[in-house]
Amino acid sequence: MIRNYAIDESEEIFYNLPLEELGRDGVKWVWVDLYQPTEEEIQILSDYFRFHPLAIEDCLDDLNQRPKIDFYPDYQFLVIHALEREIPRPIELDMFVNEKFIVTFHKQPLAELEYNWERLKESQSRIKGPFFLMHTLIDKMVDEYFPHVYRIEEELNTIEDNTENESIGELMEQLFDLRAELSKLRRTILPMRDLLYRIIHSERLGSIMEQHLYFHDVHDHLLKLVEMIESHRDFSSDIRDSYLSLNSNNMNRTMMTLTVITTIFMPLTFIAGVYGMNFDYMPELHWHYGYFVVLAAMFAIGVYMYLFFVKKGWLRLGKKRSEPKR
Amino acid sequence: MIRNYAIDESEEIFYNLPLEELGRDGVKWVWVDLYQPTEEEIQILSDYFRFHPLAIEDCLDDLNQRPKIDFYPDYQFLVIHALEREIPRPIELDMFVNEKFIVTFHKQPLAELEYNWERLKESQSRIKGPFFLMHTLIDKMVDEYFPHVYRIEEELNTIEDNTENESIGELMEQLFDLRAELSKLRRTILPMRDLLYRIIHSERLGSIMEQHLYFHDVHDHLLKLVEMIESHRDFSSDIRDSYLSLNSNNMNRTMMTLTVITTIFMPLTFIAGVYGMNFDYMPELHWHYGYFVVLAAMFAIGVYMYLFFVKKGWLRLGKKRSEPKR
Amino acid sequence: MIRNYAIDESEEIFYNLPLEELGRDGVKWVWVDLYQPTEEEIQILSDYFRFHPLAIEDCLDDLNQRPKIDFYPDYQFLVIHALEREIPRPIELDMFVNEKFIVTFHKQPLAELEYNWERLKESQSRIKGPFFLMHTLIDKMVDEYFPHVYRIEEELNTIEDNTENESIGELMEQLFDLRAELSKLRRTILPMRDLLYRIIHSERLGSIMEQHLYFHDVHDHLLKLVEMIESHRDFSSDIRDSYLSLNSNNMNRTMMTLTVITTIFMPLTFIAGVYGMNFDYMPELHWHYGYFVVLAAMFAIGVYMYLFFVKKGWLRLGKKRSEPKR
Amino acid sequence: MIRNYAIDESEEIFYNLPLEELGRDGVKWVWVDLYQPTEEEIQILSDYFRFHPLAIEDCLDDLNQRPKIDFYPDYQFLVIHALEREIPRPIELDMFVNEKFIVTFHKQPLAELEYNWERLKESQSRIKGPFFLMHTLIDKMVDEYFPHVYRIEEELNTIEDNTENESIGELMEQLFDLRAELSKLRRTILPMRDLLYRIIHSERLGSIMEQHLYFHDVHDHLLKLVEMIESHRDFSSDIRDSYLSLNSNNMNRTMMTLTVITTIFMPLTFIAGVYGMNFDYMPELHWHYGYFVVLAAMFAIGVYMYLFFVKKGWLRLGKKRSEPKR
Amino acid sequence: MIRNYAIDESEEIFYNLPLEELGRDGVKWVWVDLYQPTEEEIQILSDYFRFHPLAIEDCLDDLNQRPKIDFYPDYQFLVIHALEREIPRPIELDMFVNEKFIVTFHKQPLAELEYNWERLKESQSRIKGPFFLMHTLIDKMVDEYFPHVYRIEEELNTIEDNTENESIGELMEQLFDLRAELSKLRRTILPMRDLLYRIIHSERLGSIMEQHLYFHDVHDHLLKLVEMIESHRDFSSDIRDSYLSLNSNNMNRTMMTLTVITTIFMPLTFIAGVYGMNFDYMPELHWHYGYFVVLAAMFAIGVYMYLFFVKKGWLRLGKKRSEPKR
Ligand SMILES: [Mg+2]
Ligand SMILES: [Mg+2]
Ligand SMILES: [Mg+2]
Ligand SMILES: [Mg+2]
Ligand SMILES: [Mg+2]
Ligand SMILES: [Mg+2]
Ligand SMILES: [Mg+2]
Ligand SMILES: [Mg+2]
Ligand SMILES: [Mg+2]
Ligand SMILES: [Mg+2]
Ligand SMILES: [Mg+2]
Ligand SMILES: [Mg+2]
Ligand SMILES: [Mg+2]
Ligand SMILES: [Mg+2]
Ligand SMILES: [Mg+2]
Ligand SMILES: [Mg+2]
Ligand SMILES: [Mg+2]
Ligand SMILES: [Mg+2]
Ligand SMILES: [Mg+2]
Ligand SMILES: [Mg+2]
Ligand SMILES: [Mg+2]
Ligand SMILES: [Mg+2]
Ligand SMILES: [Mg+2]
Ligand SMILES: [Mg+2]
Ligand SMILES: [Mg+2]
Ligand SMILES: [Mg+2]
Ligand SMILES: [Mg+2]
Ligand SMILES: [Mg+2]
Ligand SMILES: [Mg+2]
Ligand SMILES: [Mg+2]
Ligand SMILES: [Mg+2]
Repeated sequence: MIRNYAIDESEEIFYNLPLEELGRDGVKWVWVDLYQPTEEEIQILSDYFRFHPLAIEDCLDDLNQRPKIDFYPDYQFLVIHALEREIPRPIELDMFVNEKFIVTFHKQPLAELEYNWERLKESQSRIKGPFFLMHTLIDKMVDEYFPHVYRIEEELNTIEDNTENESIGELMEQLFDLRAELSKLRRTILPMRDLLYRIIHSERLGSIMEQHLYFHDVHDHLLKLVEMIESHRDFSSDIRDSYLSLNSNNMNRTMMTLTVITTIFMPLTFIAGVYGMNFDYMPELHWHYGYFVVLAAMFAIGVYMYLFFVKKGWLRLGKKRSEPKR
Repeated sequence: MIRNYAIDESEEIFYNLPLEELGRDGVKWVWVDLYQPTEEEIQILSDYFRFHPLAIEDCLDDLNQRPKIDFYPDYQFLVIHALEREIPRPIELDMFVNEKFIVTFHKQPLAELEYNWERLKESQSRIKGPFFLMHTLIDKMVDEYFPHVYRIEEELNTIEDNTENESIGELMEQLFDLRAELSKLRRTILPMRDLLYRIIHSERLGSIMEQHLYFHDVHDHLLKLVEMIESHRDFSSDIRDSYLSLNSNNMNRTMMTLTVITTIFMPLTFIAGVYGMNFDYMPELHWHYGYFVVLAAMFAIGVYMYLFFVKKGWLRLGKKRSEPKR
Repeated sequence: MIRNYAIDESEEIFYNLPLEELGRDGVKWVWVDLYQPTEEEIQILSDYFRFHPLAIEDCLDDLNQRPKIDFYPDYQFLVIHALEREIPRPIELDMFVNEKFIVTFHKQPLAELEYNWERLKESQSRIKGPFFLMHTLIDKMVDEYFPHVYRIEEELNTIEDNTENESIGELMEQLFDLRAELSKLRRTILPMRDLLYRIIHSERLGSIMEQHLYFHDVHDHLLKLVEMIESHRDFSSDIRDSYLSLNSNNMNRTMMTLTVITTIFMPLTFIAGVYGMNFDYMPELHWHYGYFVVLAAMFAIGVYMYLFFVKKGWLRLGKKRSEPKR
Repeated sequence: MIRNYAIDESEEIFYNLPLEELGRDGVKWVWVDLYQPTEEEIQILSDYFRFHPLAIEDCLDDLNQRPKIDFYPDYQFLVIHALEREIPRPIELDMFVNEKFIVTFHKQPLAELEYNWERLKESQSRIKGPFFLMHTLIDKMVDEYFPHVYRIEEELNTIEDNTENESIGELMEQLFDLRAELSKLRRTILPMRDLLYRIIHSERLGSIMEQHLYFHDVHDHLLKLVEMIESHRDFSSDIRDSYLSLNSNNMNRTMMTLTVITTIFMPLTFIAGVYGMNFDYMPELHWHYGYFVVLAAMFAIGVYMYLFFVKKGWLRLGKKRSEPKR
Repeated sequence: MIRNYAIDESEEIFYNLPLEELGRDGVKWVWVDLYQPTEEEIQILSDYFRFHPLAIEDCLDDLNQRPKIDFYPDYQFLVIHALEREIPRPIELDMFVNEKFIVTFHKQPLAELEYNWERLKESQSRIKGPFFLMHTLIDKMVDEYFPHVYRIEEELNTIEDNTENESIGELMEQLFDLRAELSKLRRTILPMRDLLYRIIHSERLGSIMEQHLYFHDVHDHLLKLVEMIESHRDFSSDIRDSYLSLNSNNMNRTMMTLTVITTIFMPLTFIAGVYGMNFDYMPELHWHYGYFVVLAAMFAIGVYMYLFFVKKGWLRLGKKRSEPKR
């Protein structure tokens, strides 16, 4: 699909002008949007706008380009990443922009672009032109990065608290997924930060100096996002290490307790075995209270060992197993 | 709430002048403070001072801005972080400053600002002007970072010594929390350091060259804080690794001791079992001293195994369990 | 083997001209390719072209050179790495290039070079000259890096899902090999990225300014490759940590379950041992229902312990052992 | 305490001149040393020398300043760290220096300063002036860093060899302390390196250009110290990982051996139990050689299991427990 | 020992000229080599050449200097590291060089220097002068770094394959030593790389611009060495982690198998114990086939448990213990 807006000198907006009128006198600037364009519609990039083959290739490529800006003599070419609402999967938006036009190209629907398309009439861009519109699009996209990072932060906190008492395996799996999401976010946000840095510091973009502050503002957001991502990665490592060590500690405590029980019964069972032997001459067997003496001895040994191990802290039956919490 | 100070040419101070008099002749500079301002009071930023919408947005935003400085043609805009007394949670202070005014904006109470407000009369700022006041505010805030870092250092030392003999689980939880606090501190202190670096090295701040040394002094403190935080993080990792490995070592020693006890009794119980069998023809059973010979043999085997395991160092009943100390 | 192409002013192509005609008037530029050249053929580098001994040494050296560009007064010398199809083992291609010629040197067959050799007639290089041909060769080689990285990504995902239920040992071995491959890829891709960076930013390569954008495009690809490699390394660490911790967790659960079974039978066996003793006077033995009372008591003790351990979560016989997934 | 040296044009030295004579004609330069000065003596800094309040504050502050250089219009202010002999705890030395004087300030005794104070007469500084004296002081202090680093290296080697056969716990504790010392050293040495770098590269220190090479020499030492510290930290990590893994391996081998013994006796004890049953009709019991057949069977089973486990390498009684040596 | 070569205008070589003739007309340049010089021979550095005391100190110092270049007004002073053949222990070579002379100083024999000394007659240095000789020496030394790195790579591969089936302890010890060697190599190679970088980029070395390419070639080698070392360190970490986790996995599997055997016999032994009790009234004992019924029941229980555990994968007697292979 291809559609366009043309803004004339008196800031009036015309919708879907035919191609040949886009360049006519009086048109201040135009916005041409290509969404899942047909083979034929794609021709406009090379035939009408005469964009560089490398830039067109980057648009058509199914491979996701990393965010970047390329400086061509008559226009700039940008690749921007929006993120899908549900998962932080990048959606590529390609832009050609100069003082007279902005051409946007995308293969997937883009809520942030649609939002600006609808509101162009009341937007400042109508007056300030294509570079301001470019800012508005990028700004909107970067704003949508935050919910992802906030959601991850919340999920990390939920895992840390573990109020729903999930198993260690489930917690580890959730952490693993969150770390993978942070990794993916980083692959979008780091080059976006570098891209904004280049926009701000490039001398070839002198024409947007007026909007300099606006791009600076987006750069601020990206710096904050980078810091949050790095910090959340650290946090997730700490949670994982903490859980694993406490879980392992709990398991070992349990094994120790079980082994203590076995250890207490070993000598008792041995004594019983001794008096179960069938020797002809075993004097104790014939003592009248032999049985009770042995029972008492076994009881004493058992109690002594029990107290010994409790004192050493090797037996923790009574203590409720501390749930693997953080 | 909105309040102001005006200092006139003769360094006299006027409190809460009406807006229209702030700009009159003879006023050298003014300090306007907005604390939890009403919708109406906020209008002063755009209507009276005509600050840039992006800067005003940063003030009003509920999202915590990261510390930064933005250079506008007629004034500078700064975002500073103070820290709460109890926990290292940042409190945002926004400042607009030039040679004629300083406008401060904050949504939470700020002891450091209040301190300066009270003492303006005897402060050097009265004479040296808004940039010196800006320094005084930042300096005061950065000074308040130290108690947090010192407290964390002390708590790490307490954990290392573990004089109160806390359980490994509690120690790990305390370490985890301290690491999270260090992480949060870093997210305030690193951008504050970068901010001070920019203040010192910015050519656009020529007007504060006179106060250059004072900002350098704050930068020193921030460098020291960064080093302390990195060093404390390393220290906390070392404590954790050390505790975990010694705890695991102690547990394994215990398990080994318990298993040795079981292992000693296995062959003895087996021998008792053998002589408890009911075969018709078992010659040993009828020997007169058979029982005592077997008892002695079992005793000998038990002692031999005991000594063998002690010599190998696999049995450590007698040695007091070394508490998991670092 | 040595072969050449000569392109004359009218863009006509001549194949395998004799050496002495390569420099004649009317020849616009030439491509000389040396593939496993004989001692004699190698002489052309020093005798005919008079290349620097250091550059020739780099060609002949059996040691793999790292990718680089050396600036000589009359030509540039480049070392490029292609990758073998099956495993990411580098194949070295050496190039001498200036406005009049490109000399390629390789000891192993190079599909990417062959591809360009075949298609020179319809290629843009015929008109645009040696530097564009150089770009085409590098571009083609870098394109062939991607399949390796994509394959590794897929294999990592396969390991993460483990649908074929392979043993932990096999998974760890596969991960280890993938990490080694990533390491090797990095040793090719990082210096290639630095090489392209130098090509783009070198002032001495002014003559290729026209093709600047084309080299920038390759640099983009290398940046993306670097990011993917770093991200895949992180991913592989996370998979490994996750597998190991879950495997260890499963094993410990199993040991706990087995030990619980032993622990339940210890006191029961002890009781049976007690009533197997042969004392003359053991009143319980003569009670009529003594046997059944003891049986019932043992059953009760066993059930009680079983329930106790189940409640504590120390016994997980019923639950299917969760395969080490993810 | 306050004391001074004055060197006159003819390189003669005067000791403890009264303040008012320090500035008289003919005095080439002076060295004033303040050691634990009284309130009154401190006044000299502000009243006589008129140093900047920020620099004086840095001197008086109980907080340890990090090493640094501050450039004031008429003098330089430096903070230097010496290290105590026994432990690498920093001692702060503050210096004010220009072509006419050097003022040193310290709260703790400083052997390196005392050394120079004693030898000033025969020192080159007498002729070369305050900046050379500054170099001599710093050089002396940095030389004293080496013994700490060498001692740590030796202690690491001792731990690695463990010729005194210390317990794993003691070794880990020693390693932990060495790592903490390395951390502390780094907090002194890194900023000292940066300080020397600034001294060498500062354009404002043009006056010391003559002594440039001498400061470069100190910088060399600091570079080497940084490398040694980083390398020792790596080394300590490797020792720790190595010890822990071998210790854990040894423990597991021991547990396996013990468990094998138990496992061998389980079926034997079971067989004895079977023939200890009291059934009326158990034909084997009445066979004449039944007892010996069963004994032989048990022996065969025991030997078979023993050999089986030895072959599998699960039993290592005979092999001396390999001491946890790296 | 002290020896020298003098090359005159006609490129003729004179050996061991007396000192006073070294500076005579017609001598183009000289090479003076000091090897373990006597106190007296050392005087030549200060008395004849008048080198700076700091440089002479660096020569005489027993402390190993790190590789570096110092720029003195009339000559350059370099510290270079060769490596011993067997172990990567650095041997220091000090050089003073300008257009007229090269003075080499070393306390240990240096094969690379000897090699050049012997071949000076046929070397290019005779004509190209001291800076080219300097290059030749450095080049030769850096070439000798490679065998160390290649040997380490091979040893790592041997450890990875473990065809000689060495114990985990021996493998870990070998890995530890290789990592320590890599660390030592890095401490030589990193500053050598920085040194070559400075040689290439220093403006004060304009005089060697002609030999620029030759030093660039050495720098290339050092870059490759750095990459190999970093990569080998990563590889060694991966091998270690892999071995440890598989070893731990194997041990745990073994423990599980042993524990399963114990667990199978526990209930059987208990049943035998029950029927070994001596109660007067135990009806089963008097059933004619009671014994066989119980034997059958025990067999059935044993087989059932065996199958149950095999199905759960907790028993792996049959499977050959997988050797700890990477
Ligand atoms: Mg990317
Ligand atoms: Mg940032
Ligand atoms: Mg962390
Ligand atoms: Mg953290
Ligand atoms: Mg903003
Ligand atoms: Mg922040
Ligand atoms: Mg940060
Ligand atoms: Mg710092
Ligand atoms: Mg620092
Ligand atoms: Mg650490
Ligand atoms: Mg572990
Ligand atoms: Mg080379
Ligand atoms: Mg390489
Ligand atoms: Mg690697
Ligand atoms: Mg590299
Ligand atoms: Mg492209
Ligand atoms: Mg990149
Ligand atoms: Mg990147
Ligand atoms: Mg990761
Ligand atoms: Mg473990
Ligand atoms: Mg200060
Ligand atoms: Mg410090
Ligand atoms: Mg540290
Ligand atoms: Mg260094
Ligand atoms: Mg270094
Ligand atoms: Mg290490
Ligand atoms: Mg030196
Ligand atoms: Mg070194
Ligand atoms: Mg190292
Ligand atoms: Mg490198
Ligand atoms: Mg690794």
